Amino acid sequence: MPLADASRALLRRVGTATLTTQLLKRGFRNTSMRGVVPLHDGAEVMVGPAVTLRYVPAREDLATLESLGSREHPQRKTIETMPEGHVLVVDCRGETGAAAAGAILIARLLARGAAGFVADGGMRDVETATSLGLPIFCSGPSAPPNVGRHHAADANVPIGCGGVAVFPGDVVVGDRDGVVVVPARLADEVAASAAEQERLEEFLLAEVRAGRPLFGTYPPDEATLERYRRSRGEN
Amino acid sequence: MPLADASRALLRRVGTATLTTQLLKRGFRNTSMRGVVPLHDGAEVMVGPAVTLRYVPAREDLATLESLGSREHPQRKTIETMPEGHVLVVDCRGETGAAAAGAILIARLLARGAAGFVADGGMRDVETATSLGLPIFCSGPSAPPNVGRHHAADANVPIGCGGVAVFPGDVVVGDRDGVVVVPARLADEVAASAAEQERLEEFLLAEVRAGRPLFGTYPPDEATLERYRRSRGEN
Amino acid sequence: MPLADASRALLRRVGTATLTTQLLKRGFRNTSMRGVVPLHDGAEVMVGPAVTLRYVPAREDLATLESLGSREHPQRKTIETMPEGHVLVVDCRGETGAAAAGAILIARLLARGAAGFVADGGMRDVETATSLGLPIFCSGPSAPPNVGRHHAADANVPIGCGGVAVFPGDVVVGDRDGVVVVPARLADEVAASAAEQERLEEFLLAEVRAGRPLFGTYPPDEATLERYRRSRGEN
Amino acid sequence: MPLADASRALLRRVGTATLTTQLLKRGFRNTSMRGVVPLHDGAEVMVGPAVTLRYVPAREDLATLESLGSREHPQRKTIETMPEGHVLVVDCRGETGAAAAGAILIARLLARGAAGFVADGGMRDVETATSLGLPIFCSGPSAPPNVGRHHAADANVPIGCGGVAVFPGDVVVGDRDGVVVVPARLADEVAASAAEQERLEEFLLAEVRAGRPLFGTYPPDEATLERYRRSRGEN
Amino acid sequence: MPLADASRALLRRVGTATLTTQLLKRGFRNTSMRGVVPLHDGAEVMVGPAVTLRYVPAREDLATLESLGSREHPQRKTIETMPEGHVLVVDCRGETGAAAAGAILIARLLARGAAGFVADGGMRDVETATSLGLPIFCSGPSAPPNVGRHHAADANVPIGCGGVAVFPGDVVVGDRDGVVVVPARLADEVAASAAEQERLEEFLLAEVRAGRPLFGTYPPDEATLERYRRSRGEN
Amino acid sequence: MPLADASRALLRRVGTATLTTQLLKRGFRNTSMRGVVPLHDGAEVMVGPAVTLRYVPAREDLATLESLGSREHPQRKTIETMPEGHVLVVDCRGETGAAAAGAILIARLLARGAAGFVADGGMRDVETATSLGLPIFCSGPSAPPNVGRHHAADANVPIGCGGVAVFPGDVVVGDRDGVVVVPARLADEVAASAAEQERLEEFLLAEVRAGRPLFGTYPPDEATLERYRRSRGEN
Repeated sequence: MPLADASRALLRRVGTATLTTQLLKRGFRNTSMRGVVPLHDGAEVMVGPAVTLRYVPAREDLATLESLGSREHPQRKTIETMPEGHVLVVDCRGETGAAAAGAILIARLLARGAAGFVADGGMRDVETATSLGLPIFCSGPSAPPNVGRHHAADANVPIGCGGVAVFPGDVVVGDRDGVVVVPARLADEVAASAAEQERLEEFLLAEVRAGRPLFGTYPPDEATLERYRRSRGEN
Repeated sequence: MPLADASRALLRRVGTATLTTQLLKRGFRNTSMRGVVPLHDGAEVMVGPAVTLRYVPAREDLATLESLGSREHPQRKTIETMPEGHVLVVDCRGETGAAAAGAILIARLLARGAAGFVADGGMRDVETATSLGLPIFCSGPSAPPNVGRHHAADANVPIGCGGVAVFPGDVVVGDRDGVVVVPARLADEVAASAAEQERLEEFLLAEVRAGRPLFGTYPPDEATLERYRRSRGEN
Repeated sequence: MPLADASRALLRRVGTATLTTQLLKRGFRNTSMRGVVPLHDGAEVMVGPAVTLRYVPAREDLATLESLGSREHPQRKTIETMPEGHVLVVDCRGETGAAAAGAILIARLLARGAAGFVADGGMRDVETATSLGLPIFCSGPSAPPNVGRHHAADANVPIGCGGVAVFPGDVVVGDRDGVVVVPARLADEVAASAAEQERLEEFLLAEVRAGRPLFGTYPPDEATLERYRRSRGEN
Repeated sequence: MPLADASRALLRRVGTATLTTQLLKRGFRNTSMRGVVPLHDGAEVMVGPAVTLRYVPAREDLATLESLGSREHPQRKTIETMPEGHVLVVDCRGETGAAAAGAILIARLLARGAAGFVADGGMRDVETATSLGLPIFCSGPSAPPNVGRHHAADANVPIGCGGVAVFPGDVVVGDRDGVVVVPARLADEVAASAAEQERLEEFLLAEVRAGRPLFGTYPPDEATLERYRRSRGEN
Repeated sequence: MPLADASRALLRRVGTATLTTQLLKRGFRNTSMRGVVPLHDGAEVMVGPAVTLRYVPAREDLATLESLGSREHPQRKTIETMPEGHVLVVDCRGETGAAAAGAILIARLLARGAAGFVADGGMRDVETATSLGLPIFCSGPSAPPNVGRHHAADANVPIGCGGVAVFPGDVVVGDRDGVVVVPARLADEVAASAAEQERLEEFLLAEVRAGRPLFGTYPPDEATLERYRRSRGEN
Repeated sequence: MPLADASRALLRRVGTATLTTQLLKRGFRNTSMRGVVPLHDGAEVMVGPAVTLRYVPAREDLATLESLGSREHPQRKTIETMPEGHVLVVDCRGETGAAAAGAILIARLLARGAAGFVADGGMRDVETATSLGLPIFCSGPSAPPNVGRHHAADANVPIGCGGVAVFPGDVVVGDRDGVVVVPARLADEVAASAAEQERLEEFLLAEVRAGRPLFGTYPPDEATLERYRRSRGEN
């Protein structure tokens, strides 16, 4: 299911905090990755459907530097077939002692038009990798190559990343608050509701900054909502 | 017990490192929070008596988005009665997978003249929240709303935060080294001793930078103390 | 075994990521510290042979503020005999709740010509300590003095730091990807191989940024290597 | 709200596993404590409404061996007013490095007719304590006295224990699968449903042991349910 | 690749400790699961080729009690097609807060002739489950049903379990020392070498118990090996 | 400093819980190991002065199966020179993924008259090892040989084990509550005080079991102490 351009635009405007609230309202409690932080400065919001890649623990006879040359190596193959505007999400089992990827792979993702990179593991060559411009979310810097700890098992299967389920096609959104996963079928609906919530909260923040108390304002009572609606009309 | 203006001024000048040394000399070994870092740039020192708020694990029927509208909700009520110059300290049980608060609550604390916000849990809307100007110390960014993980149980009771006991009125000091809790009855005495220690250590640092060895200088022997006293007289 | 100037220069140019690959090729899988991050901005690469210092858990009758005045105190003695161009590596057993050192000790290391400071524990006075200019790698800021948690047991013995074995004289390299330990007897050989690998990878990164696919490029096939060799000839 | 004798009897028969399923059906996902295991052999099922006790981190001037003599000390007072058939649940913040209680306090709970003891911390004097006959669930043995790590702050307030919310009066059930908390207002309803589920599952287990496949049996289809109903009628 | 009966018999006689030594000699350093313990008394050695099952984090709309009724549910389908003499190994991502399975599924595995059950997650209904006779290795008791935390994603793919790679067909061996994974292609060779090592070590243990020093005995020098060979000849 | 026979006898009678109280009264707060449990049934109390052995992380070129044959290998040499009645305490840095020792080394310790074995790491061959009769305290079973994770660095130096400082000669006591370290110079004094405390607490336990309330009994007031003294006179 492709992500509608309008939804992508809305999701780029709303924060992940707002998305978690919208998902909680729909019964989804486990949507924000844990231990995954922006490695780039985080200012740019990342939005895109997930392509997934799955690592299992390394076995010394399989996870070798030589294995990376194969055209069937799941990591290399996944990157070489990465569709434009998508986010690569890698299941590292929370292993922070090795890199999920390094600068050359990030460069290739960028060249293929990827929208971002997410892993619950480390990143190497961080100085170069973060300079390239692709949003990167991971556990932090980690020098060792992935073959020392990981064997790339398969791709485009459901995975866990940062403790959250990620299905291929789920919409992944990342900003300074972290990375949130929106189930594919809910992306349009959640994007619309989140944008509406964000508009209201910007109004409420301004009210509170102007001196209003929380009671009646946040959450808003009918009088506050009326003021909000009027302010929208006046815009 | 109000915090004397003079003590507040002294505490703003000394670092939390010096405070832990003064507290250790008085037999207090567990005074510096663990897992609590400045979210703002940390340059400004935070000082103020603690107002405490206590979260317990969420229960799905109680910790709801709707519950936040009640005037008896402990989190909202505590913020609405926050005395000027105080620091709100929230016991999140070290749960980093949800926010203790977000930008609107930080804005209200600021409007009420609070001196800072401390939680051993996450913060959401970090881009906006950190732009407002209130010192914020927490476990890091975390998008999900607090009701997904927390139920606000009560306020102004003794709590643990970052592994340290915090009693209402204890003086909470935060800088780039972290957050330290000074028992209320010791605040004036510790502030004075810490300021004196800091003056001496600035002198010792200058001596070491000028080439003096550690032996005789740090800790100082009588000759070094004599030089220090002379330097003070010359000021 | 002194570190050859040429090797030191090469190691300053290559990243720790490349070093872990070279070490993995030689059968060394556990060479990159975990939980140890640059406290300074990390831009400058740290290189130097290790001087080691070992802490054990504090015992209240031995680990006292007074004990620091002794000329036999292992921490103070080690710093006062620190050879130029070396890196002090401190085994804190991963204890992040106290400082391994503070600004005055960092100042003295700098005055003695040390090349850097590494600890799998905290650092206090971080604002001052990081302003002095010595590369510092540690678990993060931590206000409490080391005597509250640590007793300095001995120096220049094999230690563990960040989960990696460090023998006195091993070459310690730190950059934004972290800290890597190169066994002393391999330092020259690894430095040379790493520099060669880095040159090649810079070429490959440029190729990928110019649009080449991973297959055939990374790892490079014979055609790519031929282009690389030609590019070198043209330089 | 007192626990009906009939519900207590039902809850004693059903396992905590069944209770978590019934609670999940009602939307409660976080009901089973983590890191809390039976210290006694676990064969006897523990059932009773919760009395809660809350510890915060120790402060050296307050948490003293001497403080235990006061009639206002929350731990001692709570035990001395413990109602018959209740379970004492202690919030130790997951601190396993000290005892929540020891043999003499367990003996007193038993003398007062308590139904059990639960803590997300350690137990000391385990040889004697477990010989007394009271069901004890905790993190395991731990020799140090509680005052070394804990200050008893208050009692009969909502707490967290093993990551689960416990309100005074909630029904606490423990067996070899662990400890589960049933919200007070749901105790009778959940007890009845769980007993019915358990009867059915005993039938299904017998069917599976007799060779039936899972499909159609577990979960049961209409044919299996018909056989079950017939078996009940024949009893 | 079926496991030869002779190898199965040998593996049942040798311990997992000996297997890890034989695997280390062949360059395999990560072969023993962490956090996975025998739930049954552990006296009986478990041996069999792995069938794998993979869980990802639950999503509230997919991981439902109702989903368990589907004939395509990977967990139920895997158990219903379990080949005789095999071990079911479940990847729970180390999540100990829910059960990987309960008594009815264990009963069905037993009815199908399975050789054992392994999970890096919990087990519910432990009293009944352990009474059935199937060797069970897991993280310990945990009451909640798997759907509260897990979504069964697929089966017979490479997985991680207890931090170790498990490929379908790898030979899984469990005893009181834990669970070790032997790559399928090495099973016969490792079984033979391990049996020989175990014979020698039984001899060496007897020698040491009779008073021989470690030097010359363990590891054995030529004289000790000569005694060993003679003892074998005399048997 | 040899341990007086009388003190050894007293320490065998008192529990580790009582020892931690006596040590806390003398200002020692960190005396009980964390993560170290009896592997044998724990019924027999272990008492003896510490011989220490220190492991650092393995390096593939040094920590080899072959290295174990050297007469200078610190682990083997320490065991071969183990004095009678002492306890071997091994610093494994809390690494639970490998064995600190196995059955043959335990057999040799027993043959040399050792009083026990303690490690904050695993034990292999647990079935055989625990059958030999030497008290063993460790993190639990772990199959892999120590050379996979550890390099034996030196012996009879101060170490940390289970988070507690252990100096050679410190008296190590282990029972079902865990392992406690008594500084050598305090052993006689603490043994005497602990025995007296234990006698009193046995009396108090009997009083509480007979129905006395905690107030006035535990801690005892003058009337209770008078009854205690009379009971001692009547014995």
